[in-house]
Amino acid sequence: MKFCNQCGAGIIRKIPAGDNRLRYVCISCEEIHYQNPNIVTGCIPEYEGKVLMCKRAIKPRYGYWTLPAGFMELEETSLEAALRETLEEANARVDVLDLYAVFNLQYAGQVYMMYRSQLLDLDFSAGEESLEVRLFTESEIPWDEIAFTTIKQTLKFYFKDRRNKKFNLHTGDIIKHDDGRYDFRAGPESRDED
Amino acid sequence: MKFCNQCGAGIIRKIPAGDNRLRYVCISCEEIHYQNPNIVTGCIPEYEGKVLMCKRAIKPRYGYWTLPAGFMELEETSLEAALRETLEEANARVDVLDLYAVFNLQYAGQVYMMYRSQLLDLDFSAGEESLEVRLFTESEIPWDEIAFTTIKQTLKFYFKDRRNKKFNLHTGDIIKHDDGRYDFRAGPESRDED
Repeated sequence: MKFCNQCGAGIIRKIPAGDNRLRYVCISCEEIHYQNPNIVTGCIPEYEGKVLMCKRAIKPRYGYWTLPAGFMELEETSLEAALRETLEEANARVDVLDLYAVFNLQYAGQVYMMYRSQLLDLDFSAGEESLEVRLFTESEIPWDEIAFTTIKQTLKFYFKDRRNKKFNLHTGDIIKHDDGRYDFRAGPESRDED
Repeated sequence: MKFCNQCGAGIIRKIPAGDNRLRYVCISCEEIHYQNPNIVTGCIPEYEGKVLMCKRAIKPRYGYWTLPAGFMELEETSLEAALRETLEEANARVDVLDLYAVFNLQYAGQVYMMYRSQLLDLDFSAGEESLEVRLFTESEIPWDEIAFTTIKQTLKFYFKDRRNKKFNLHTGDIIKHDDGRYDFRAGPESRDED
């Protein structure tokens, strides 16, 4: 950030009065330009024990599999955003059951909110951002070709809960290590979980 | 938004190629300036059946009561943000039990995430943004002097669950009507709830 989007003047980094963090502040109109994490929201669309996944037609992770998800927009709720992404990426209609996973991706400035949902019909197809969309049973899931750790962790919880016939909310953080590996740190609800 | 914060040129509103929404786009470098909802996160600090609340020393809703909460920052998790806000606003230390409420405030472009938590000691006091901080039993809660509908709804669920001796996640949307009234619309987990 180099220029004030309100008046066009230059920007400096400083701690504003009454604050305790470095912010981008306009040198002329003194507007403070806050930067905050974004929300990514999506669905786990299920149908007779299978899960609908999308093969990415966009970067990053082109060609890898994911669940339908994307950035929440202004003027929509997190649930509406999840439904919209499911429609856009998989041309699929679902009935949302519950909020299933809330994961922090601190390194990316993102919070993921994934909803468990029921596919309403089999009339799905690849949206513009997908190469292919298909249903996977647990044994068919392409674990080594999943686009993001967040999605892999969501699916791990999902199939484990499915086997135990008890679904509950999972929270936690996806940690990115310096060597590029990712780990999951469970939230307070589930410190004993995998 | 009038100027590009990358190059200082003018901004227009248009739908970028491959997108389906009006965005702020730079007329020179074509940078797209996305705007997305923010996360507000906080705690319900409990101690022997009482809840710790803060009387606001800042606008909006100066002088009204709230729970410790505020905007999540980059480089922290939602839980860390909730702990930080509790420390900043109430000089209070808590042990977080679980994610208790996730509410959309579509009209404000915000998603609230409130954590149920246990106050670790009674050494709390008003932070810079609070006039006063105190513990309330359910019957002492100043229902008519609560700063935000979100906080009132969170406390309603909290005390109801407490009476029923069963806490679970509550999701939903705070709806702002044209006449200024607010309503709560329960999420998919709890369509039958109040």
